[in-house]
Amino acid sequence: MKRALTLSSALLLCSALAAPLGATELRATGDLGVIVERATGSVLIIDQSEHAAIGRIEGLGDLSHASLVFSPDERFAYVFGRDGGLSKIDILSQKIVKRILQSGNSIGGAISDDGKLIAVANYEPGGIKIFDADTLDLVADIPAEGKALGLEDAPGRKFVFSVWDTGETRIVDMSGAEPRITTFAHVGEQPYDALVTDDGRTYIAGLFGEDGLAAIDLWDETPEPRRILPHYGRGQEEMPVYKMPHLEGWAKAGDQIVLPAVHHHEVLWIDSRSLEETGRTETYGQPVFAMARPGGRQVWVNFAHPLNDTVQVIDSMTHQIVGEMKPGPAVLHMEFTSRGTEAWVSVRDENKVVIYDTTTLQPIGEIAAESPSGIFFTARAHRLGL
Amino acid sequence: MKRALTLSSALLLCSALAAPLGATELRATGDLGVIVERATGSVLIIDQSEHAAIGRIEGLGDLSHASLVFSPDERFAYVFGRDGGLSKIDILSQKIVKRILQSGNSIGGAISDDGKLIAVANYEPGGIKIFDADTLDLVADIPAEGKALGLEDAPGRKFVFSVWDTGETRIVDMSGAEPRITTFAHVGEQPYDALVTDDGRTYIAGLFGEDGLAAIDLWDETPEPRRILPHYGRGQEEMPVYKMPHLEGWAKAGDQIVLPAVHHHEVLWIDSRSLEETGRTETYGQPVFAMARPGGRQVWVNFAHPLNDTVQVIDSMTHQIVGEMKPGPAVLHMEFTSRGTEAWVSVRDENKVVIYDTTTLQPIGEIAAESPSGIFFTARAHRLGL
Repeated sequence: MKRALTLSSALLLCSALAAPLGATELRATGDLGVIVERATGSVLIIDQSEHAAIGRIEGLGDLSHASLVFSPDERFAYVFGRDGGLSKIDILSQKIVKRILQSGNSIGGAISDDGKLIAVANYEPGGIKIFDADTLDLVADIPAEGKALGLEDAPGRKFVFSVWDTGETRIVDMSGAEPRITTFAHVGEQPYDALVTDDGRTYIAGLFGEDGLAAIDLWDETPEPRRILPHYGRGQEEMPVYKMPHLEGWAKAGDQIVLPAVHHHEVLWIDSRSLEETGRTETYGQPVFAMARPGGRQVWVNFAHPLNDTVQVIDSMTHQIVGEMKPGPAVLHMEFTSRGTEAWVSVRDENKVVIYDTTTLQPIGEIAAESPSGIFFTARAHRLGL
Repeated sequence: MKRALTLSSALLLCSALAAPLGATELRATGDLGVIVERATGSVLIIDQSEHAAIGRIEGLGDLSHASLVFSPDERFAYVFGRDGGLSKIDILSQKIVKRILQSGNSIGGAISDDGKLIAVANYEPGGIKIFDADTLDLVADIPAEGKALGLEDAPGRKFVFSVWDTGETRIVDMSGAEPRITTFAHVGEQPYDALVTDDGRTYIAGLFGEDGLAAIDLWDETPEPRRILPHYGRGQEEMPVYKMPHLEGWAKAGDQIVLPAVHHHEVLWIDSRSLEETGRTETYGQPVFAMARPGGRQVWVNFAHPLNDTVQVIDSMTHQIVGEMKPGPAVLHMEFTSRGTEAWVSVRDENKVVIYDTTTLQPIGEIAAESPSGIFFTARAHRLGL
């Protein structure tokens, strides 16, 4: 069965890549994207408008849980591998520009608002490293007494990250000649992931060791962490959590933030000003990503194993579920086109990415990909806090 | 004096364009932009990262009050000229792809959310025309009993516009085989410009003939126009208005909207939920554009003649002016890089565009341009309601 699948997917891949881009052909980059193929250490370069794969780059190491960021000109992607690999790829010439192994075990990264610096969060040894975006030369090494994670960019050439073991959060200001570091000694027990709101103002870290989340106002001259949503978390009972929700999946929908609940089969609606809970919607499974269609009219949700074959669509005004699709086994990620007309959904165990019309909720295209996980469109280059 | 200026600017232009792009060179488009040269019917293609002009396209007709939109791939710009000209230009090959004269007198346009349709608002004859974005073939002709303006795109392949003479607003839904038109017979006296909020939800038209503005909730199944800000306008006295503020200059800054007052030397701060006024900031002159730095931490304002040599920067948390610059005579427009690290400011009467660091407020670069007015960066391709 496994071989049959692989064969059929290989055929699909051949057909998808039948007409690769001539490397000297003029091509704009505003509608391109990169899909992580987690099992094979490769990425697929896609063209949104053509609903087509236009190339593949291989040799990127361990891409389980991989993510990436784009350069401001939308030409280069920086791929953060689980094995500490940092690869700079050129999506126009479809080549690896440079690849370094910068640690033994890493978990995500960020690009500074001016596009000049790449930061990577490392588990082993703990801390973050900051590289020149052009050369990948080391610019700053900021060690920590534990696993660094929840690394985000913030306006003013800053990065913010947290440390699992110590519960601390640090702001690293790279606007001067030397890094200036502000440390909050203990924002909470075992921060596990974080986000920066789309205005670059608020850093929010999820806590594994206790309920509630830690929020820091980055616009404040002398910021202080505060605790929000005290009832958010696993709760008193030690319930099994199959997969922690991704906090970058937090979605702004109008005046609300939508939050995947931890363990429970529901999403929470939060007032974006007060950060108080205003409602809940029961869902099909434990949500992993809750992502707003650009503009915020609907929110799309995928789910943890074993209910990860389904996507639900929720109306942000009524909080009602207005659509449900079964793209296939192991839906790992979703990405909207920048103005929200399409959603691309990765279906790992069928080796494909399914493209949906967000108005009709009907599939309108499909691309073969080898165990696809994260889908990243170049428009991310223009957004804060990703 | 005039000749001296022209000569010196010609020299500057030569130097700026000394190393034009080879038309076959690979170039990404995420950090490119187009600057309108209003007096010469030309546009300059610029590269943000290089702080440089990389080409010029001529022969675009009357570009006074010209604006433009970008294709989703950030390769093509559609330029709306005052003379009814609609030009599709290729910013990679730096050529006019197609140019038509679609009316006698037009005022702005929009691109549908899926990037497939271009709409243009016309004064003579009144109404809007909708074209295929690929070919510029006419798709729909929607006449009106007066000057069409305030034309904006809205999610779901829709356009919205108003009519000066009749006071009506129309929603044109292009998602089906034929246009479906919803008409609001009279939203107010003499609508003169409009905007759609960045979530694509609310259409707001300014009224010249009376105080207040008309707002329409586009998410509502059966939307009804309502009047907001009853004290916004010229007021009882017939004060001279040198230049109507641009409503697309309305800026979202956190939970606030900033609004250039009509006639008065101030900007108004509005609660983004209730649309009630929450404060005012006295400014140097009559504001024309009030634009939020991406993220909304500060707002930059330019002013009407004769005080149009100045830009002021306002802190959105304190409503205090925190910076003032004098870029030169006739500051017509400003554009931020997509993550807000730089602002580009056109100085018409010194034939240049000045680039500011938004943190230090210091000039960090300059580009020669012939009577520059509007500055448009390709990141606009990814935003709703522009």
